[in-house]
Amino acid sequence: MRISELETPALLVDLDIMEANLARVAAYALEHGLRLRPHTKTHKIPALGRRQLEHDAIGLTVAKVGEAEVMVDSGVADLLVAYPVVGRTKLERLMEVAKKTRITVALDSLAVAQPLSDAARAAQVQVDVFVEVDAGMGRVGVAPADLVPLAKAVHNLPHLKLTGFNFYPGHIKAPDEIGLAALAKVSDIVSALIAEFRAADLPVDVVSGGSTPALYHSHRVKGLTEIRPGTYIFNDRNTAEAGGCGWEDCAATILTTVVSRRPGHIIVDGGSKTFSSDRTSGPGDPTFGLVREAPGSLFYKMNEEHGYIDLRQAARQDFAVGERVRILPNHICVAVNLHEHIYGIRGDQVVETWKVAARGKLQ
Amino acid sequence: MRISELETPALLVDLDIMEANLARVAAYALEHGLRLRPHTKTHKIPALGRRQLEHDAIGLTVAKVGEAEVMVDSGVADLLVAYPVVGRTKLERLMEVAKKTRITVALDSLAVAQPLSDAARAAQVQVDVFVEVDAGMGRVGVAPADLVPLAKAVHNLPHLKLTGFNFYPGHIKAPDEIGLAALAKVSDIVSALIAEFRAADLPVDVVSGGSTPALYHSHRVKGLTEIRPGTYIFNDRNTAEAGGCGWEDCAATILTTVVSRRPGHIIVDGGSKTFSSDRTSGPGDPTFGLVREAPGSLFYKMNEEHGYIDLRQAARQDFAVGERVRILPNHICVAVNLHEHIYGIRGDQVVETWKVAARGKLQ
Repeated sequence: MRISELETPALLVDLDIMEANLARVAAYALEHGLRLRPHTKTHKIPALGRRQLEHDAIGLTVAKVGEAEVMVDSGVADLLVAYPVVGRTKLERLMEVAKKTRITVALDSLAVAQPLSDAARAAQVQVDVFVEVDAGMGRVGVAPADLVPLAKAVHNLPHLKLTGFNFYPGHIKAPDEIGLAALAKVSDIVSALIAEFRAADLPVDVVSGGSTPALYHSHRVKGLTEIRPGTYIFNDRNTAEAGGCGWEDCAATILTTVVSRRPGHIIVDGGSKTFSSDRTSGPGDPTFGLVREAPGSLFYKMNEEHGYIDLRQAARQDFAVGERVRILPNHICVAVNLHEHIYGIRGDQVVETWKVAARGKLQ
Repeated sequence: MRISELETPALLVDLDIMEANLARVAAYALEHGLRLRPHTKTHKIPALGRRQLEHDAIGLTVAKVGEAEVMVDSGVADLLVAYPVVGRTKLERLMEVAKKTRITVALDSLAVAQPLSDAARAAQVQVDVFVEVDAGMGRVGVAPADLVPLAKAVHNLPHLKLTGFNFYPGHIKAPDEIGLAALAKVSDIVSALIAEFRAADLPVDVVSGGSTPALYHSHRVKGLTEIRPGTYIFNDRNTAEAGGCGWEDCAATILTTVVSRRPGHIIVDGGSKTFSSDRTSGPGDPTFGLVREAPGSLFYKMNEEHGYIDLRQAARQDFAVGERVRILPNHICVAVNLHEHIYGIRGDQVVETWKVAARGKLQ
């Protein structure tokens, strides 16, 4: 099928670019002796998890039990749930997954670890655990001074196997001077923690970190053993703006149709239910994506099913109703989650159709 | 089942409040002789479309062909697609819907009307048409001066039946002085257009308008025959903030669980993939919802699966990991679209579970 035969809006993935992204990160990880455990929240598709495993990933990452249930279909042998799993029935479901594949849970409190231990005992399985440290982001994770006490307590719980610690350096937005200085601080925290774990005779086989914006600087964190990038498979406008990838590395675009026009403006058939309402991460820029066919245009407003594009400063202004434009979204992870299917393309051909199987798996 | 047995995040609808909302708008429409054609984009559930029909709706509204395909299951006899439908296969699908129920399409160009006429002829069906005027919002719709020429051209196309015109007063954000002044201008535009249609001997049986914020002032638009509110079934924070409903009329909340805590802050298990990243429509307020159990708290930041809540100014600060809080979302229409199911509650009991059947029906 040709791209022109797709109904819109449709999320397209350029497979040549995607495959280059997978290969580039695999090569980087190999070069620096880092194990690669991609976060699948970006694509939510088992077939793409399998592609990541074929590109030297040692395992995969998910955020939710519902995603884990879907992602086992990738054939993954080592699955990290990088989220504190809370709730009795959710833990029961996770134990069913743990009977199929090795599971690690990242957590930051005994209030999460104790019920996990209980659930693992009831199901007669073992669950690996990372204890999570806040390396500066202020989200999940204990303060560095509290990590070893937590690790000790978890280490003593039956049916859990502490294997190390993890962090998410989400406060590092770009590989610029500020970002690299923050990364150096993260490295200091990590080095100190590894020493503390060893002094306390705690296992620290795994130190798991990494995110997409500063991905290619992950080796600067001394002692890091694995990285968990997500966005890199597709990349997006925010990643390119931050310098975390090149513009030519952006594999995903959203194909839309012009449905209405007036002087200097067009309306396309995608809004916040197609792109998400995520703005650019850059300050002061309120736009929602880049229109490939109209450089200089501004995607300045959205409603649920309408995208407003101002063409007055654009290279082209003569778009007709029915014409199609491809838009690079700000944040691909939330956009994919809005689509039932995404389409793999080569040139003008649609060569793959994937169901976004873990779309909306919130629980 | 009790609410406490649900896994989180879960979108709850208080049925007593929802039913009061349905009855209140039905009574308002009856009182003012307005026909009620609710927009189902808010709930995307045929069973709720049926409830609206039971509450005196004369038909329903959708934005997308995919929503129309789902919403025919409500038993609706009169369905408006309030969106310019563009694309050959999309039109073919719409004609299949038109074989099951009466369809009206709102459009604003011959570039949309001509292929629609062709598709209707090929399928041997008749499709009703509204021509859309821009009453001040600057989205879809021709300028008032261009409406009658468009209406004449559409009126001459075979297999289309022009029945009147429509507009969406989305620029009216609140029933305040500014909003009511804008509504008065809309009324003037509508009155002039009705006179023009009559002078040109064009059908104008239907004048369709209305939105949720100024819903109860719709009768101020002279000549209006029908209203198409959407959000009113559930309401949300933005509607209440704007004065479009009372806080006690907000039927939908999102149940979340505290998964991590640190001094003065909690993290809950819902972020932009649960609530959407829609901000409040009020200027300068960057928060993402109101936490019922913690008045004074600030839901100040989101990632995809994390909600950051600052409790430092809140009435309560002693939330434990595992505790649950209910959050009133900013914009319910985009939130519902992220959930596979939503749950109808009375008191502490879950009494209905609905699949969000038209979730992600983007095409």
